[in-house]
Amino acid sequence: MTPLKIAVVGLGRMGKRHVYTLLYKVPRVEVVAVCSTEAHEIDWAKNNAEYKEFGISVYDNYDKMLSHPGLQAVWISTSTDVHASQSLGAIAKGLHVLCEKPLSTDLAEAQSVVEAARKHPDLKVMAGFSRRFDASYRDAAVKVREQGAIGSPFLVRSNTCDLLDDTGFFVKYAKRNGGIFVDCTIHDIDLSLWFLGNPTPKACWATGTLQHHPELKEANDVDNAVGVVEFWGGKIAYFYSSRTQAHGHDVCTEITGTTGKIMVNVIPKANNVVVADRLGMRHEVQPEYWQRFEDAFALEANEFADSVLNDKPVPLPMEAGIMVMKIGRALQDALNTGEVVRFNEKGERI
Amino acid sequence: MTPLKIAVVGLGRMGKRHVYTLLYKVPRVEVVAVCSTEAHEIDWAKNNAEYKEFGISVYDNYDKMLSHPGLQAVWISTSTDVHASQSLGAIAKGLHVLCEKPLSTDLAEAQSVVEAARKHPDLKVMAGFSRRFDASYRDAAVKVREQGAIGSPFLVRSNTCDLLDDTGFFVKYAKRNGGIFVDCTIHDIDLSLWFLGNPTPKACWATGTLQHHPELKEANDVDNAVGVVEFWGGKIAYFYSSRTQAHGHDVCTEITGTTGKIMVNVIPKANNVVVADRLGMRHEVQPEYWQRFEDAFALEANEFADSVLNDKPVPLPMEAGIMVMKIGRALQDALNTGEVVRFNEKGERI
Amino acid sequence: MTPLKIAVVGLGRMGKRHVYTLLYKVPRVEVVAVCSTEAHEIDWAKNNAEYKEFGISVYDNYDKMLSHPGLQAVWISTSTDVHASQSLGAIAKGLHVLCEKPLSTDLAEAQSVVEAARKHPDLKVMAGFSRRFDASYRDAAVKVREQGAIGSPFLVRSNTCDLLDDTGFFVKYAKRNGGIFVDCTIHDIDLSLWFLGNPTPKACWATGTLQHHPELKEANDVDNAVGVVEFWGGKIAYFYSSRTQAHGHDVCTEITGTTGKIMVNVIPKANNVVVADRLGMRHEVQPEYWQRFEDAFALEANEFADSVLNDKPVPLPMEAGIMVMKIGRALQDALNTGEVVRFNEKGERI
Amino acid sequence: MTPLKIAVVGLGRMGKRHVYTLLYKVPRVEVVAVCSTEAHEIDWAKNNAEYKEFGISVYDNYDKMLSHPGLQAVWISTSTDVHASQSLGAIAKGLHVLCEKPLSTDLAEAQSVVEAARKHPDLKVMAGFSRRFDASYRDAAVKVREQGAIGSPFLVRSNTCDLLDDTGFFVKYAKRNGGIFVDCTIHDIDLSLWFLGNPTPKACWATGTLQHHPELKEANDVDNAVGVVEFWGGKIAYFYSSRTQAHGHDVCTEITGTTGKIMVNVIPKANNVVVADRLGMRHEVQPEYWQRFEDAFALEANEFADSVLNDKPVPLPMEAGIMVMKIGRALQDALNTGEVVRFNEKGERI
Repeated sequence: MTPLKIAVVGLGRMGKRHVYTLLYKVPRVEVVAVCSTEAHEIDWAKNNAEYKEFGISVYDNYDKMLSHPGLQAVWISTSTDVHASQSLGAIAKGLHVLCEKPLSTDLAEAQSVVEAARKHPDLKVMAGFSRRFDASYRDAAVKVREQGAIGSPFLVRSNTCDLLDDTGFFVKYAKRNGGIFVDCTIHDIDLSLWFLGNPTPKACWATGTLQHHPELKEANDVDNAVGVVEFWGGKIAYFYSSRTQAHGHDVCTEITGTTGKIMVNVIPKANNVVVADRLGMRHEVQPEYWQRFEDAFALEANEFADSVLNDKPVPLPMEAGIMVMKIGRALQDALNTGEVVRFNEKGERI
Repeated sequence: MTPLKIAVVGLGRMGKRHVYTLLYKVPRVEVVAVCSTEAHEIDWAKNNAEYKEFGISVYDNYDKMLSHPGLQAVWISTSTDVHASQSLGAIAKGLHVLCEKPLSTDLAEAQSVVEAARKHPDLKVMAGFSRRFDASYRDAAVKVREQGAIGSPFLVRSNTCDLLDDTGFFVKYAKRNGGIFVDCTIHDIDLSLWFLGNPTPKACWATGTLQHHPELKEANDVDNAVGVVEFWGGKIAYFYSSRTQAHGHDVCTEITGTTGKIMVNVIPKANNVVVADRLGMRHEVQPEYWQRFEDAFALEANEFADSVLNDKPVPLPMEAGIMVMKIGRALQDALNTGEVVRFNEKGERI
Repeated sequence: MTPLKIAVVGLGRMGKRHVYTLLYKVPRVEVVAVCSTEAHEIDWAKNNAEYKEFGISVYDNYDKMLSHPGLQAVWISTSTDVHASQSLGAIAKGLHVLCEKPLSTDLAEAQSVVEAARKHPDLKVMAGFSRRFDASYRDAAVKVREQGAIGSPFLVRSNTCDLLDDTGFFVKYAKRNGGIFVDCTIHDIDLSLWFLGNPTPKACWATGTLQHHPELKEANDVDNAVGVVEFWGGKIAYFYSSRTQAHGHDVCTEITGTTGKIMVNVIPKANNVVVADRLGMRHEVQPEYWQRFEDAFALEANEFADSVLNDKPVPLPMEAGIMVMKIGRALQDALNTGEVVRFNEKGERI
Repeated sequence: MTPLKIAVVGLGRMGKRHVYTLLYKVPRVEVVAVCSTEAHEIDWAKNNAEYKEFGISVYDNYDKMLSHPGLQAVWISTSTDVHASQSLGAIAKGLHVLCEKPLSTDLAEAQSVVEAARKHPDLKVMAGFSRRFDASYRDAAVKVREQGAIGSPFLVRSNTCDLLDDTGFFVKYAKRNGGIFVDCTIHDIDLSLWFLGNPTPKACWATGTLQHHPELKEANDVDNAVGVVEFWGGKIAYFYSSRTQAHGHDVCTEITGTTGKIMVNVIPKANNVVVADRLGMRHEVQPEYWQRFEDAFALEANEFADSVLNDKPVPLPMEAGIMVMKIGRALQDALNTGEVVRFNEKGERI
């Protein structure tokens, strides 16, 4: 077995975790390089005993990293604004790409990556919608799509609610993420399209509020938002995203069909422990999506490696992200304007 | 103790239950009469041994019933389209009134009842929003409004989802109820105003779908609908109502604030029993709002009796229902037109 | 309708609640008298406006109360040590009796009441095992006994765990209750016999510990105890009773059969409210068995009234309590001696 | 980094899974060999493409396997009756050992392995009580032992309940496992000692029943059993083990202390999915302990590898299993004789 030589670009909170996942849970992959442009991340990586033990090279320049000897694939885990250019760079070098969602906050740019991927059918270029790899969502998909457990699905409610971060970290990062519907709800939109059988959007509306992060106002963003999407054919999805939860990372999805409903993670739990004391009975909730989706990231990486090593289609092609992004942008526009955003029957904005 | 002499008008499913509640759970009340215009209901009541035992007179004419000797109060449990006229009739006779929600599907008509009540300050005229009397909602209100358990509340999600009725009963009744947002969501709107501190609506939008009851199309109605209300001051409420649930009567509410969230009945349970067998672990769900709110109806009736007998303010004056109805109608209009309905800062439609 | 004239003897915490239940939830009953020997309870009752309003006479002497004009039935809610003598007194006067469990801490004395009841077949004499009237236990019984939902039931786990009472009230009262297995577990034993089809005990063993109430040592009692009963024919029941729970009144029962398991109240909840905040997600637990079984007490009283007014068999005859008590005493003996207590195939101690 | 060269002996259901865990989740380990004496397992392994890809040698003889070039450690996953001899064999060859619980059904034999390990302090010899490595049990231990979340713990209830296996596989295997308390409850005993702070047993009693596997009678075993252990100092543990659950692998533990209770997995769930349909709301339960403890096995193997590679103490020395086994045997004896088994204050059987 020759493992797939991969590099991880971006060494923020998630980049570090992806390296960990690759080292510990993806045996057919060899992490040969990491890259960051942040001095403190580069320092951290250079002094990391584990990285040394596993023989990982540390780069401060993305292009140089792309030329690492024998490199076959890149996992892009940087901020959204460079996803597209880094994907294009890797594709141009003939490297396989796993790019974190969303591809771009700009639809045309996102489309350019899809085109580039199309021109290189030998390369595996994959959109990183991690929830598709979560065991519960997969089980829900089997029940809904294969077993007909709820008849014909027609409505999705889905939330992406983050624990309040009052360290300032989130606000700093938020300016580059395209807004709450593009950064958070994007996952819920993707799940909705998956569970509802890729319906075409007809209209959407959204509203939001600023409760903890007034600084977001400058970026035309909010910290709590609700959006509704109506699809052609009588299907509906509605979403709540929040940056300000007190209790943890609360991501749930309900899919309602003509004969039943599937609920995913409606009561989030960090583990199987309950404390009973004078306050009653309580359980803890995962603080971040990492704790909730750690196993999903490992499965995603394993399936990506499998698609490259055994030349199988990627589980989630880049195209999948385009309609998701289109709806995310429409919700963000509805939020900003207060107006309904409408689509024709081809799914084009009107 | 001289009990309050009360009559119940309407002997449909709920009217019968209200009589039962009054007989068995409201000791300070004496049911002296019931009234219906439906022949089969009148027959049923005349032959009811329990009604005979308790000495209940059966009327087929509302006006005659209002003249029942010694009658002091009326509980109106008929279809929505006669709520207002029956309320006005009772007030004119000097009787106290407990009228099921909503007062009317027509705002002007509803307003006329409020006016009539205002002119008779000696009469107790009360809006029947039963959820306000539910132990869990009351506990939530104490936690949110008195204890500050979630900081400043800014967002409500609330559902009214009924078990699918495929007997034809519901569809027949549906034509007179004003639409799904006026008939179902009205409870959720009331709860939202209660928990959010009576904010003023700014804009709302809604969408819906027909999944089981195509006959509703004639009445411009749907059997599943989602609506969002934005309030002046940055508060939000969003709703899902359904006529087609497979698993039971599923009514839940979540109130999110700056430091926490209160969840009411997010996992509905018929009782404390769980069955573990080859399907896993399961519990049953209440089939109807009666099973969910039986105790709330009793408390409502007891508090109404108390307000009359001891000349206290009614727990929920008729006025409370006006803004609720205004928002319900706006959501229904948004559903029908696909347009955003907007309000000025006084809460007037624009 | 002529209501059943009833008196309640004992005005401790539960006696007062039983009066409340009779006044508010049992329409076919009229409370004509109450009785206590405690001066402060008598005072309290004499000055109670509600009692006056409902015309309730207050007695300080049980025998005088038995002669109250027109009295038909007695609800005995005193301490265990006078249950038997008061039952005998009422029976001798030709009154119907609903006596709280257990009939006595002494088996011979309990048997004497059963004999007396047998000699007066015209009188309704009923054992007050309230859990048999709880909606969830009834549903479980239907599922287990009528629907065969778990195949052949062979094992019961059942707990009676009380909230810690550090006011001194419990310890004072505890000396007269016969010990933890006789006072608490007695309910669980009754449920086990019910769900397992009245098997005959073969052997039992028990152990306990003192964690909060060292004063119980004098009375040969403990504040936490575990007991196991083996029945002839391969059935088993095991119990945990506690006086020292931090989180509330926690009473649960699991019935395991050959094809499934029924769980009753394994996760106790005070209501449908969940609080999500920085501690995670939590719900409250009922503080006392009153909150857990309030509706059961009402049903019990209604069924007792029905059996008297309509001359039906009582739902739970006194005899039912004898085997329950026999097992409770055996567990208490096992606890005290550390030895296995054994029974022959007729269920007699050997 | 030079990975630890390890071999897995036993290729039954769990042996195969341990190989999988080592390949996919334990990066610092290299699986160099596997061994079985079952022809069909050997065939299966020899034809396994994955084993070939990872370069794993397949042996049909344990002693030969011990001489595999460069072998450093052995994971013993055979049937209980050869655990001790295989451990001794590996120790004699200077190999590190991770041996599945229990070390032996015979206490003297188990003790001999402990002695052998003591004589080779350079070797890491570890008892495989997998639950100690489960995230929820670890969290519970932190809460109980480090944070004092429940005050002083004094009572443990713990269950090991397996899904009914009606393929005949279990019954065949059961004859060599030492009985239900030794094979199943052993985990619960270990957890009890852990959470209660290693108290000394004083007395125990047990009873059981045969509901599905009458063949077990020959081996003096049952398929459902309840046991109680009293410890010196007023602590108690009680257990239920079953081979015949309908709903899945149900392993739960409750630790009660003076100020609270910790519950681990009291409501077992396969994942975060709930289905709501006409049966109510339900979730699935893990079918086997593998699904429940898959991550725990990976952590166990990683910690074992770490202890060898970095010369740290093993997380769970062999000695830990001796008292556990002593109590397991005592419960099994109590089950067989119907008598209480007692221990002196040193924990010796009397």
